[in-house]
Amino acid sequence: MLRISCEELSDTLTRVLLKLGFEQARAETCARLFTETTCDGIYSHGIDWFPRFVKMVCNGSIDVGASPVFATKFGALERWDGRRGPGNLNAYECMARAIALSRENGVGCIALANTNHWMRGGTYGWQAADAGVIGICWTNTMANLPPWGSTEPRLGNNPLVIAIPRSNGHVVLDMAMSQFSYGALASYRMRSELLPVEGGFDTQGQLTRDPAAIEESQRPLPIGYWKGSGLSLTLDMMAAMLSAGHATHQIPTDKLRETGLSQVFLAFDVSAFGSAETSAKSAEQIIEFVQAATRTSGSENIRYPGERTLQTRAENRSLGIPVEPALWDEIQKM
Amino acid sequence: MLRISCEELSDTLTRVLLKLGFEQARAETCARLFTETTCDGIYSHGIDWFPRFVKMVCNGSIDVGASPVFATKFGALERWDGRRGPGNLNAYECMARAIALSRENGVGCIALANTNHWMRGGTYGWQAADAGVIGICWTNTMANLPPWGSTEPRLGNNPLVIAIPRSNGHVVLDMAMSQFSYGALASYRMRSELLPVEGGFDTQGQLTRDPAAIEESQRPLPIGYWKGSGLSLTLDMMAAMLSAGHATHQIPTDKLRETGLSQVFLAFDVSAFGSAETSAKSAEQIIEFVQAATRTSGSENIRYPGERTLQTRAENRSLGIPVEPALWDEIQKM
Repeated sequence: MLRISCEELSDTLTRVLLKLGFEQARAETCARLFTETTCDGIYSHGIDWFPRFVKMVCNGSIDVGASPVFATKFGALERWDGRRGPGNLNAYECMARAIALSRENGVGCIALANTNHWMRGGTYGWQAADAGVIGICWTNTMANLPPWGSTEPRLGNNPLVIAIPRSNGHVVLDMAMSQFSYGALASYRMRSELLPVEGGFDTQGQLTRDPAAIEESQRPLPIGYWKGSGLSLTLDMMAAMLSAGHATHQIPTDKLRETGLSQVFLAFDVSAFGSAETSAKSAEQIIEFVQAATRTSGSENIRYPGERTLQTRAENRSLGIPVEPALWDEIQKM
Repeated sequence: MLRISCEELSDTLTRVLLKLGFEQARAETCARLFTETTCDGIYSHGIDWFPRFVKMVCNGSIDVGASPVFATKFGALERWDGRRGPGNLNAYECMARAIALSRENGVGCIALANTNHWMRGGTYGWQAADAGVIGICWTNTMANLPPWGSTEPRLGNNPLVIAIPRSNGHVVLDMAMSQFSYGALASYRMRSELLPVEGGFDTQGQLTRDPAAIEESQRPLPIGYWKGSGLSLTLDMMAAMLSAGHATHQIPTDKLRETGLSQVFLAFDVSAFGSAETSAKSAEQIIEFVQAATRTSGSENIRYPGERTLQTRAENRSLGIPVEPALWDEIQKM
């Protein structure tokens, strides 16, 4: 495994994006978002995703020159059209707009239609928390998860992000509605490991910890069984109905043609109440109380969502980001 | 099992509430909410809960005369003080206010501090959907769920409700962050049944389907293991920080003293966009697509959240609500 600096990764990706026709500033932001995701240890949605992103630019699924345009508004609820621009730039711009709305209205909601995969959803949670506001966002996806009671993928895994600003490290939850992503299943399989808990059904309809059996059956498990199935459905309905965009059933089920997604970005700004200190203290006390709980034997720590990200970020900034030599070769030759 | 009519149940509960000091109109609304919950088949949070509610009035945890008062606002985000009034009346009033805000601002958010258990959360989802708007609400609770990596309950099970209006039956998700409530565990135990899936850890730290083993260990499982643990934490943080109210760690862990809760009510009104028909069609197509998925062998139907509620409601309206004779006796003597 190579270790490369964040700067080198960012510069390299910027160069490739410029070649693909991105404007300078947009290339730099897009490269920065890919780099930050990678630096935070979410390799699957960072550098590992980049070749897929490039293919989707080349096959016309992503329009490098398109940015979201305002469609209509009603108070603090706005609809935007993503025009199939790069998913991370679109999402970043829409969360920025939700934050701005929350500074005027306490709460702001942007519903974005016609966009592309946002890569790491957590990015827009960190963005909100860095701006000092509470952020919630989610996306729909192509059908990749069977509803409870079915063997056929007809729901998206529709990642949901909730971010809360905190001076000692933001709390950022970033979770898909499937217990394990296909990326995670592949990682366990390649390491010849069983999943830590049951992650889906095998082709016989039995719950299993064998990642290969789930890849074969295409039946990953929704979190909480029927509960995650229902949550995924309602997130898709809200995304499509708030944005007037596509629902999961209208999104092509081809990894390289998965476009026309719908997303929702919510921001809440309580700073106008003048209770920033009370709010910060409340966050601190909640984390302290939870982390002081009696641990299970063998448990190192009770982590809050986002805690491990900060550790990985610090490590990768200091040591460089670990990159597969073959992937790095491929990207450098682009 | 007796069967009593909705009218008889509602009249009986109203009479008891009047004796407890409720004003006439508030007694009627409170009784109606209990009755509707029961009629919808959520007995645990309807008639079965009523004796506990009465005890909490008698021990001073619930102030029958208190209703929420406006505290402060910033745009479409308002803070209200529930003054420890009856939890269902407080929540009903705050969802009504969120709906009203959404009609002016597209989105409305009410953060309610200092309230009581709202009984069935789904009630306020049905309320939003009946008003034609999308509703989201959640509550924190006393600590009753160990965070992932811990043996000690330091999170609430913090139910989350998402409701989407639909002419052929609203979609209403109402789910706690634990895979099974203590009420559900007790029901399985009394029927000498195993849980359909693993529902928690036994005292040895092994995952189990034995409800009694989980009641003993006090270690129910969060939905999706670490994911539900993280979601529960962020819902508590948001509820406390948006409302400036109490977090789970500040709520007494005594079923009859569980007061001072924090709740959030969000409503979204897209009708101003003039796209009601498109929106309705979108909802219809999503449900159709999901319900047409290939079923697992033995699965009768792929249900959307809220579908079974409508069936139970129709049955109970026509046949009467099933009630345990001993419980009915107890309530009639109040």
